[in-house]
Amino acid sequence: MTSEPATTLDIQALAQAARNASRQLATTTSEQRNAVLGLLAGQLERRAGTILSANAEDVLSATGTIDGSSLQRLKLDGTKLAAMVQGVRSVATLPDPLHRVQLRRELDAGLELTRVACPLGVLCVIFESRPDALIQISALALKSGNAVLLKGGSEARRSNAALLEAVQAALREAGLPETAVQGLPDRAAVAALLQRPDLVDLVIPRGSNALVQGIQAATRIPVLGHAEGICHMVLDEAADTAMAVALVRDAKLQYPSACNAVETVLIHRRAAARLLPALVDDLLPRGVELRGCPACLALAPSLKAATEADWDAEYGAPILALRIVADLDEALAHIRAHGSGHTEAIVTEDPEAAARFLAEVDAAGVFHNASTRFADGFRYGFGAEVGISTGRIHARGPVGLEGLLSYRYLLRGSGQRVEDYSGPSARPFSHADLPLDT
Amino acid sequence: MTSEPATTLDIQALAQAARNASRQLATTTSEQRNAVLGLLAGQLERRAGTILSANAEDVLSATGTIDGSSLQRLKLDGTKLAAMVQGVRSVATLPDPLHRVQLRRELDAGLELTRVACPLGVLCVIFESRPDALIQISALALKSGNAVLLKGGSEARRSNAALLEAVQAALREAGLPETAVQGLPDRAAVAALLQRPDLVDLVIPRGSNALVQGIQAATRIPVLGHAEGICHMVLDEAADTAMAVALVRDAKLQYPSACNAVETVLIHRRAAARLLPALVDDLLPRGVELRGCPACLALAPSLKAATEADWDAEYGAPILALRIVADLDEALAHIRAHGSGHTEAIVTEDPEAAARFLAEVDAAGVFHNASTRFADGFRYGFGAEVGISTGRIHARGPVGLEGLLSYRYLLRGSGQRVEDYSGPSARPFSHADLPLDT
Repeated sequence: MTSEPATTLDIQALAQAARNASRQLATTTSEQRNAVLGLLAGQLERRAGTILSANAEDVLSATGTIDGSSLQRLKLDGTKLAAMVQGVRSVATLPDPLHRVQLRRELDAGLELTRVACPLGVLCVIFESRPDALIQISALALKSGNAVLLKGGSEARRSNAALLEAVQAALREAGLPETAVQGLPDRAAVAALLQRPDLVDLVIPRGSNALVQGIQAATRIPVLGHAEGICHMVLDEAADTAMAVALVRDAKLQYPSACNAVETVLIHRRAAARLLPALVDDLLPRGVELRGCPACLALAPSLKAATEADWDAEYGAPILALRIVADLDEALAHIRAHGSGHTEAIVTEDPEAAARFLAEVDAAGVFHNASTRFADGFRYGFGAEVGISTGRIHARGPVGLEGLLSYRYLLRGSGQRVEDYSGPSARPFSHADLPLDT
Repeated sequence: MTSEPATTLDIQALAQAARNASRQLATTTSEQRNAVLGLLAGQLERRAGTILSANAEDVLSATGTIDGSSLQRLKLDGTKLAAMVQGVRSVATLPDPLHRVQLRRELDAGLELTRVACPLGVLCVIFESRPDALIQISALALKSGNAVLLKGGSEARRSNAALLEAVQAALREAGLPETAVQGLPDRAAVAALLQRPDLVDLVIPRGSNALVQGIQAATRIPVLGHAEGICHMVLDEAADTAMAVALVRDAKLQYPSACNAVETVLIHRRAAARLLPALVDDLLPRGVELRGCPACLALAPSLKAATEADWDAEYGAPILALRIVADLDEALAHIRAHGSGHTEAIVTEDPEAAARFLAEVDAAGVFHNASTRFADGFRYGFGAEVGISTGRIHARGPVGLEGLLSYRYLLRGSGQRVEDYSGPSARPFSHADLPLDT
């Protein structure tokens, strides 16, 4: 991660080295990949001093140039480093996603088809200030047999270089090519790679909406991520008051800057007189800014007035938009018009309303009587989270290691020709599924 | 499918209607979707006269303007129409791909996560002269609950209009929106849609390599397809002579214009004196043009000399390139350099060579002792084939109905908040997988 400008030729060589390394990783055993993760944890522990002093330099030069919360994300300490080490070790304990047989089928006697998980190949990951992301994504990539090209934020340049050295040292120690994890020198290198679907198989931007949108617009390589998280909670006519209040509070306040935090609450007209005052009484004293539609203001004159822009806002802050809707149809229409396909929830004791909501809402997560904040790989039990996708292709919602995999069809025969299975006297296929675990 | 130029506004309205129709299709039952397929089969039978005479007009105006094989693909007759009807009925008998539960997990008591298959949404399908494609893709789209926007070749304009009328009549008869399957008026409409990832979820080009490459270069919407099928057969040192000859003959000649036909045969140096003459004796009399490397020419002087361009050629014709390689390493390197990631095969009686080939080759299909022509959705037992993908994302190799699906995570709770599962006294998740079939 130097700051020298890279030529297109350099980038091609670097990506080609990543491709070669990915081929080698693709045939490694589970033990080899877990071993490199163990070595990485050890390297991070041994290099703690170097890493923390590189980080202190980054923090020093960034102070005053970036905002407080970015500075917090940039800053490493012993606790964060220990969490990184722990994270790497826990990725090592996850089941091996590679080489798993997904389908096994006899096409005919002596002609057996299997579908086997394999790595995607080469990932390009662009992340912002948080240097822990480098270790997390390297661990996930190595676990799944992928090579990875990384570009971190320039404010974390020294921290990222120190962390990358630890990863490459672990790869060398394990006898694997250190080109499996490489840094990209500058933005020009990223821009050049985004034009090369032949060199990169998947792009993963981790950072602000602006970063993700910029990357999505700049490439036709598949991008795993979400630009927006505009999540709704519908408080149905049959919502329990205490549950509705508790769930809205959790979904808004437990971590307001998360993408799965709620931004707009839609309240059924016939329950508004009951639910709205309860919400206001709970949230206003907690410092939440409430912005309501005209019907809300009629019931609770202390609210601010919402504008049209509020229905499309991802606040990332303790601000909540409130709207009273005539019925479930109007709530569903509002979500279709303003939702980002991330996570949508309904609070209701009416099983029919819940069933309709679960059946009709088109989003990665559709919840009944639960906080939108549950939309998360760890909470879903995936062990590690690559990201959350609002795309419909390949992977949707919280994505675990399986989002970094493709598959190959292996066919083992004994001389079979298609000619014998064609035409009027064609030999029939048996197409008998076989157990996966033998 | 008129020839009036369409404005961007028209296209947006048309795509929005498709989106609305797709939402309706997404919540239909298996019976409703199979019923519309049954009605479509009936419509095609009743409209046979209209369809065949529209087609006869297309054939008449195309005669002399397109080549013989394109004309053959354009031409419909009673037999082809009966096959289309049969195809629609057989798609109806396939298991329902929608609403299937793919994962079911208790996160905690009273908090259950399921992952359920859902349609992708709106497909855009561009196909060339073969009008049967319109019916095949409409049947697959309706079966999987997707709406589809279709653009066929202009030489099949009248045939496509007659077939589209049959599909829309069946939709009306079934009480479903006819906007679920719509024609696109012209190439400008396709070009406009390719710029709108918000309106179209997947693009499926069906036709020549040039068509597929052109579409892939023009859009950042995911494209399902393959631009090239450069497939190899490796005849290992331990290949059985008779089997090697029979498999090369099948892979080259059973249907030379197929994407899974073999283009280059790589022969192990130590078996060349045995295998090459046997291949030449079998293939030359069958009219195959053989182009050999210098080492091949030394053994079989009757061959034409291959040039560098031959290693990257997809002939689509009875032409075969032959190259003698020093060993399996050189064969694997040749495949890495020249393969298109479609289907690669080895012929050998040596289990170690087979195992290495199956482990190391990065392609959608990797075969041992079987013809490359088996790489096909019907032969794999998928019932219906959407296409063959050489991409690594979403779907790879022959793609059945599952390539037209995404999924949603449904979470059913009883008031759970993330707050209770966070911090020092966090309640643990149970993460217990539950049986899928209840």
